[in-house]
Amino acid sequence: MATSYLPAEPADPAGARPADPDVRPALFSPAEYDRRLEAVRRRMAYQGLSALVVTDPANLFYLTGYDAWSFYTPQMLFVPLEGEMLLYLREMDANGAFRTSWLPQEQLIGYPERYVHRPHLHPFDWVAFDLRRRGRIAPAAKGCVGLEMDAHFFSPKGYRALVNALPEWTLVDAFELVNWVRAVKSEAEIQYLRTAGRVTAAAMQAAIDAVEPGAPQNRVAAQIARAQAEGVDGAWGDFPAIVPMLPTGASADTPHLTWSDRVLQPGDAVVVELAGAHRRYHVPLARTVMLGPPSDELLRLEAAVAEGLQSVLDTMAEGVPVRELASAWNWALAGHGLEKHSRLGYSIGIGYPPDWGERTISIRSEDESVLAENMTFHIICGMWMTGYGYEVSESVRVTRTGVETFTSFPRALIRK
Amino acid sequence: MATSYLPAEPADPAGARPADPDVRPALFSPAEYDRRLEAVRRRMAYQGLSALVVTDPANLFYLTGYDAWSFYTPQMLFVPLEGEMLLYLREMDANGAFRTSWLPQEQLIGYPERYVHRPHLHPFDWVAFDLRRRGRIAPAAKGCVGLEMDAHFFSPKGYRALVNALPEWTLVDAFELVNWVRAVKSEAEIQYLRTAGRVTAAAMQAAIDAVEPGAPQNRVAAQIARAQAEGVDGAWGDFPAIVPMLPTGASADTPHLTWSDRVLQPGDAVVVELAGAHRRYHVPLARTVMLGPPSDELLRLEAAVAEGLQSVLDTMAEGVPVRELASAWNWALAGHGLEKHSRLGYSIGIGYPPDWGERTISIRSEDESVLAENMTFHIICGMWMTGYGYEVSESVRVTRTGVETFTSFPRALIRK
Repeated sequence: MATSYLPAEPADPAGARPADPDVRPALFSPAEYDRRLEAVRRRMAYQGLSALVVTDPANLFYLTGYDAWSFYTPQMLFVPLEGEMLLYLREMDANGAFRTSWLPQEQLIGYPERYVHRPHLHPFDWVAFDLRRRGRIAPAAKGCVGLEMDAHFFSPKGYRALVNALPEWTLVDAFELVNWVRAVKSEAEIQYLRTAGRVTAAAMQAAIDAVEPGAPQNRVAAQIARAQAEGVDGAWGDFPAIVPMLPTGASADTPHLTWSDRVLQPGDAVVVELAGAHRRYHVPLARTVMLGPPSDELLRLEAAVAEGLQSVLDTMAEGVPVRELASAWNWALAGHGLEKHSRLGYSIGIGYPPDWGERTISIRSEDESVLAENMTFHIICGMWMTGYGYEVSESVRVTRTGVETFTSFPRALIRK
Repeated sequence: MATSYLPAEPADPAGARPADPDVRPALFSPAEYDRRLEAVRRRMAYQGLSALVVTDPANLFYLTGYDAWSFYTPQMLFVPLEGEMLLYLREMDANGAFRTSWLPQEQLIGYPERYVHRPHLHPFDWVAFDLRRRGRIAPAAKGCVGLEMDAHFFSPKGYRALVNALPEWTLVDAFELVNWVRAVKSEAEIQYLRTAGRVTAAAMQAAIDAVEPGAPQNRVAAQIARAQAEGVDGAWGDFPAIVPMLPTGASADTPHLTWSDRVLQPGDAVVVELAGAHRRYHVPLARTVMLGPPSDELLRLEAAVAEGLQSVLDTMAEGVPVRELASAWNWALAGHGLEKHSRLGYSIGIGYPPDWGERTISIRSEDESVLAENMTFHIICGMWMTGYGYEVSESVRVTRTGVETFTSFPRALIRK
């Protein structure tokens, strides 16, 4: 900490700590965390940023390992172009952050409890002052400071707090800077995704077993949720960023309705969309279960979607433009007289509520990205028609020559 | 819709719909929804607002009944001081919104899919233009327009989109306007909370049954999650806004660490914090389970917290200032040589991830609120010491003369 002529607050509210068996080992090697930070700083330099303010919990986890359900109060990681990162959390969370983050205790800073949920204060008022006290404001003022302007837990009030407290900073949108670094996975990350895929398969099997006439949706959800946390041998289940979705019957035309006690009936088509998660890495998967004989419309969708999905998977490989995947899908669907307006998939990896997507690459014709090895996607063929719907999906890794799927569930409509 | 001289987009992307058995009946009477809107508008008038932009999913649910896991893309309810409300959602979500919201289809408006996750566009660019096309901008410009500046899913980018597109609007913080209206519950809401309390009790029992030496945390979480969705007869479980928390052993000094496969050991104290939910209403509860003989420090905490919690509950009743609850707690704790810096509880009701608190009343000495009948709170006596911790809590309703607790679990340290 630089010499300061401003009044000091207690330096470390947590105090010194004894050795502790409940400190989790770092998930990745120091070299991997170093590579991540270097990649972030290369992009920062390219975008003219002298500092970056990170608030997205998935990005905090990616850069520091910090993992807790504390993102409902403001938190931020200050990433200068040079010098040490500082992680700001609510005081009670900063005290325990060393259990999951590899950052040394002096870089874990708690803002006082009295800043939580106050109409006339914001924790970032305190954070801005603390950064000033540590001499971190002036160096960052030499360039622009990037903010995650569209992150889920960065509110306009937090943004205004920074604008007001730091007039010498030129604040610009960093866009999804860290999210874009996350798009290509390391070998270690791929291993966690493969493990998550095993949790996914167990959860989908639990769902298929539970879907039957007479079962209320919430009982199906209960079995999925149990399997998602239980996992399988050697693959424990972390909490998923989104709860199981079970669009059923006529309401299967809308994708994001959550469950109720609605009882499944013979003749219902039940869409199951869920993810298995392992150490925050997510593998989503969707299938549709038919209770009884399917309608002609549903059979038509099944055939069209099967062909479209296969066509997309056959097209995927390193070097292929993303828009070609959309094109392959659209051609296949058009052959069946169908079209789909919404995007066909998105980049996946680390997830925190409310989303397991990375908010970078979307598989649609407007996207200008090109596939690279070890990018990972959820290809979600959801067809939400008027009064019925059908979904099937795969989570995949791009290889040099094609794709690896993270699960191996049959892709047909599941008939029960 | 007012006459417009601006170019029209398709009026209703969903088209006309047939009668549908999967439309959920409204949870509350039209009269109750009317009362809620009237109460919101009274506050709006007092705050000088001619319109209010609502983005918090819990507030959307409160005013319109809309309930889906769609809050990871921007959504807003436009509430003018006079005239009809308009609910803006992503197109695929607006199509199905009639299944949970009582708003007529013409007030459910979908923004185009091409605005989702684009770096140079924001859905609120489109929403602002649509409001203009409908003639809704000028009337709202007569006063101030309130924004939920600290809502979880309202990003600075969405805020800047409104600032840029609507220069004639004077944008002010509405603070937690709708949240404050929610603070006092109706009889119907209290009934849902009582039902949620039954789910809570079942989930806590499942937790206590599962906590035993040799069990990995994720197995305990699996049993809790199952019970939370399964519920009990006549009380189905909705998804909770926060996953089960299981701070264990030395890591019980930090409250928001989520589970891993850490195996429970003899001698561990395991804190269980969870909620049961029913139709988005939440009843949280915390207990501590001791595997084997408790330490002297833990016994000391147990006694102090039991006395403190009882003292708080004895003090609660309509008309009592909230700060007196903090005072009662602090006196009881001081008698045991202890103190607690963080708040002692908060208002509860409707919850969406990432929080089941209402972000209004916090039980602490700085709070200036006065208790009213049918306010509901989670009184959470969490003591996070260095290297160990203890939690016990109650969720309660304020009555004219005291409190009603929503569950009746014994309050002592649970010994197994």
